[in-house]
Amino acid sequence: MVESPRRQQIEDAASALFRERGYAATSVRDIAQALNLQGGSLYAHMASKEDVLWSIVSRAADRFNAEVAPLAAEQASGSIRLRKMIRAHVEVVTSDQKNAAVFLHEWRFLSQERRDQMAARRDAYEALFRRVIDEGIGTGDFEAVDSRLTAMAILSSLNGIATWYRPAGALGARDIADQYADLFLRALTTARIRP
Amino acid sequence: MVESPRRQQIEDAASALFRERGYAATSVRDIAQALNLQGGSLYAHMASKEDVLWSIVSRAADRFNAEVAPLAAEQASGSIRLRKMIRAHVEVVTSDQKNAAVFLHEWRFLSQERRDQMAARRDAYEALFRRVIDEGIGTGDFEAVDSRLTAMAILSSLNGIATWYRPAGALGARDIADQYADLFLRALTTARIRP
Repeated sequence: MVESPRRQQIEDAASALFRERGYAATSVRDIAQALNLQGGSLYAHMASKEDVLWSIVSRAADRFNAEVAPLAAEQASGSIRLRKMIRAHVEVVTSDQKNAAVFLHEWRFLSQERRDQMAARRDAYEALFRRVIDEGIGTGDFEAVDSRLTAMAILSSLNGIATWYRPAGALGARDIADQYADLFLRALTTARIRP
Repeated sequence: MVESPRRQQIEDAASALFRERGYAATSVRDIAQALNLQGGSLYAHMASKEDVLWSIVSRAADRFNAEVAPLAAEQASGSIRLRKMIRAHVEVVTSDQKNAAVFLHEWRFLSQERRDQMAARRDAYEALFRRVIDEGIGTGDFEAVDSRLTAMAILSSLNGIATWYRPAGALGARDIADQYADLFLRALTTARIRP
């Protein structure tokens, strides 16, 4: 989706406010004020506040999927693919932390129809992890875990990074990703050889 | 803290609304309507909406701490203590899911002073997990992981259960807790013997 510079500014300002105050507590007037505009003039660029939330959320979902889905489909062992997927997910969470946080915490304020669409996309995304885990179990590389629970454990812990990550912190995003990957791959791999 | 039955009703109604709509989007009038009361009459039982949020959040924090802190202090191996702590945390998340979800997602709407207090309590709670992991590393039972990152990975994944757990679902809370404990203990233990 190609966007006008103004629309992009609106989404950036809205995303910052949604993250800070929550979607429900942010008004269109607040977004306009952050941009030094009149509230009414925003409606030339957006249909509603929920429309802006939908853009932010669906763009974030697109990005997670675009980065991770090709890795899940590679010809490689479950361990190798899962490590790459964890790295890619953490990269999106940390490089686009503001939008990722809005995606993760505010999507429930979408209208029912859009929420259902997003729930289906999240299920499909989670299924990428589930499938790689199941394939690793099938080849004997991974323990016979419940792949659904394990995928949710992995994704919840990776998403948690969005709440505490600081770009200026001691650990870089890649280090964090590798330590999480080490942790979950030790949990999954049957061999005692380090993944 | 002993509460009047009316105050307890107010907190229950508020917690359900905070969870469903978010704290910011819930008014005192909404809480009153859920109880078939006039908005003004609530102020005999509460100083403000934030006061009710604070009660819910601090009660949830008390409960996590009361269940988990004694387990962290037991005389037992890191593996045994960590499994018990994971079980106890999941038990609180799943048995008091509504308040746990409000605690986890809405605490950021507290006033600055109370938010700082709660952040300190959360740090102290996380430190219980960190210490048990560090002690397990010290005895050679656990891999030399970064205990802070590992504690956050564990807690984020356990807290994620609050967003998807259904009491009528196929897996009981204890099964879920044990599978998460198996996962993280496989990730941590140096011995190949199952923890």
